Amino acid sequence: MKKHNFYAGPSILPQYTIEKSIEGIKEFAGTGLSILEISHRSKEFVACMNDTIALFKELLDIPAGYHVLFLGGGASMQFCMVPMNLMEKKSAYLNTGEWAGKALKEAKLLGNAVEVASSKEQLFNYIPKNYTIPDDADYFHITTNNTIYGTEIKKDMDVKIPLVADMSSDIFSRPVDISKYALIYGGAQKNLAPAGVTFVIVKEDVLGKVSRPLPSMLDYRVHIKGESMFNTPPVFAIFAAQQTLKWLKELGGVGAIQKKNIEKAAILYNEIDRNKLFKPTISDPEDRSLMNICWVMSDNYKELEKPFSDFAKSNGMLGIEGHRSVGGFRASTYNAMPRESVEALVGVMKEFESKN
Amino acid sequence: MKKHNFYAGPSILPQYTIEKSIEGIKEFAGTGLSILEISHRSKEFVACMNDTIALFKELLDIPAGYHVLFLGGGASMQFCMVPMNLMEKKSAYLNTGEWAGKALKEAKLLGNAVEVASSKEQLFNYIPKNYTIPDDADYFHITTNNTIYGTEIKKDMDVKIPLVADMSSDIFSRPVDISKYALIYGGAQKNLAPAGVTFVIVKEDVLGKVSRPLPSMLDYRVHIKGESMFNTPPVFAIFAAQQTLKWLKELGGVGAIQKKNIEKAAILYNEIDRNKLFKPTISDPEDRSLMNICWVMSDNYKELEKPFSDFAKSNGMLGIEGHRSVGGFRASTYNAMPRESVEALVGVMKEFESKN
Repeated sequence: MKKHNFYAGPSILPQYTIEKSIEGIKEFAGTGLSILEISHRSKEFVACMNDTIALFKELLDIPAGYHVLFLGGGASMQFCMVPMNLMEKKSAYLNTGEWAGKALKEAKLLGNAVEVASSKEQLFNYIPKNYTIPDDADYFHITTNNTIYGTEIKKDMDVKIPLVADMSSDIFSRPVDISKYALIYGGAQKNLAPAGVTFVIVKEDVLGKVSRPLPSMLDYRVHIKGESMFNTPPVFAIFAAQQTLKWLKELGGVGAIQKKNIEKAAILYNEIDRNKLFKPTISDPEDRSLMNICWVMSDNYKELEKPFSDFAKSNGMLGIEGHRSVGGFRASTYNAMPRESVEALVGVMKEFESKN
Repeated sequence: MKKHNFYAGPSILPQYTIEKSIEGIKEFAGTGLSILEISHRSKEFVACMNDTIALFKELLDIPAGYHVLFLGGGASMQFCMVPMNLMEKKSAYLNTGEWAGKALKEAKLLGNAVEVASSKEQLFNYIPKNYTIPDDADYFHITTNNTIYGTEIKKDMDVKIPLVADMSSDIFSRPVDISKYALIYGGAQKNLAPAGVTFVIVKEDVLGKVSRPLPSMLDYRVHIKGESMFNTPPVFAIFAAQQTLKWLKELGGVGAIQKKNIEKAAILYNEIDRNKLFKPTISDPEDRSLMNICWVMSDNYKELEKPFSDFAKSNGMLGIEGHRSVGGFRASTYNAMPRESVEALVGVMKEFESKN
């Protein structure tokens, strides 16, 4: 039976990326060696790194003055690197979920980081609006997509101070006006590559303004100077990212994938809204994530949660359990998720409804 | 023509690891999904992580009281994490090469790190002896194998203060008396896995003694508590490490591989010592690395450096150029390097000698 991979991350990758990864492991770029055992200083891998960065910049239409870095350590490492590199006196955070809260916690360890607004009191089921960002903060930090709670900031904000965004789970899902951001970062393991590499898009002129001494590995300027090879980069994960970016370009880029993502999400949200057994956790369509779609059982059908979970699993739907802090269900519909899988899940939801 | 992979790192992996990596990418543990797109919280990957740690502990005979962590970021990140977590007042470093020097530099940024001895004045061509380690240092840091210069500390030291070792390029090449160390770390990309994961072996009772606040991702205790899953770990690289450890166990473990490593190194050092065209850069056999074997042209044959390099390459010998700071040649003979490749290189050296 076909398995449908709805995991929130690490998550589904394009079949193209998987096939090219196997080819690269068998032999990389005519070298006679596997991508798993090639020197990062070999001319073939340097070419791969350069092409990956070029594709990354092309697909996101990144303007001059920005650098793209590939680092190890995960987006969680960025939670401390961002304030280390950018916060001299004060920073401001929008608290829209668990990851946003973790980012804020790390910044507080390093200085005066303030929470400008939070939706915590309603289990993060909306994106706060109408808050005031302090003018004297060194930057304002947002998490554009909240993987656990299923909300998303889908429009680029206009902010007077440098804007920093964790885009771990929605990068490359839509066009982004990069010029509105000072720094964007994210783990690769949703829309880009297997876990093990983190991307950073950083505007050069926001760096070098803090007085604290920075360890080399935690200093963006060191990685810019080293062209992401200050130390050995995660070679294979970068190679895999290159394949995903090639696939995305061939498919028409971020504009084309956004259209598909909107369609896929509509199919599933429509069913959640329609099906008597279920109800969405996020009601405002503006705040609904196109990447992580969350729902729970309707009040009259709570006892069917476990039976539906089992029924879905027995029909090949993997990873649809909601995060333990929310319960219910979550289907992640990242770029690589085919429409057919979303339709198959909707079919399972309808079938289960007809039986109950 | 067969290629022989003598790169210093990322470097040759066992064929077993490469084949099992391809299998795991096709389908991981009967899940119907690729190892590249499986959740790190899936029971199948949690089992893989646990088995990898168990094999790691078994093969190195790690005593109770020590934890094994798999982190992202590379060994270079450990250059700052070690002093952050262990240095309250003072630390001591043995400077045996470029990486040892980089580790010392990062520690100096954080406090009073002293160099107890250095072989820099002789281009690091020996391991300093007869130095005094200050009793009041919080730890003493060594780099057991110096990839660039080809020296190695092959015996476990007896030191009165906590001993910390970077074993990036010789871990698993020989039995180690772990009980003599407080902390051992290293990048995986020599004897363990593709680049992208870093191992840390840490004795629990050396932690928690510093007063500085530690960002979560830089705090070993956070990763111990999270069982290397505080954040998303580099899933695929850990899976690959599991395969290498299985291969090593099947082969007889670190004692058996040490015997092979000694034999391989002897074959190559004997040829370097014998061949009139070449001379070793490290003269004392006690200091000669079994992992990275360095040599230069003899004084009378300096003009043959480029011709030998071309001749070797045309015979399938890859990655034997010496590091730019040393020149000459370097053949890395890690665990996965078959004796046949070393013999093939020696054959090429003899053939080139007979022609010149």
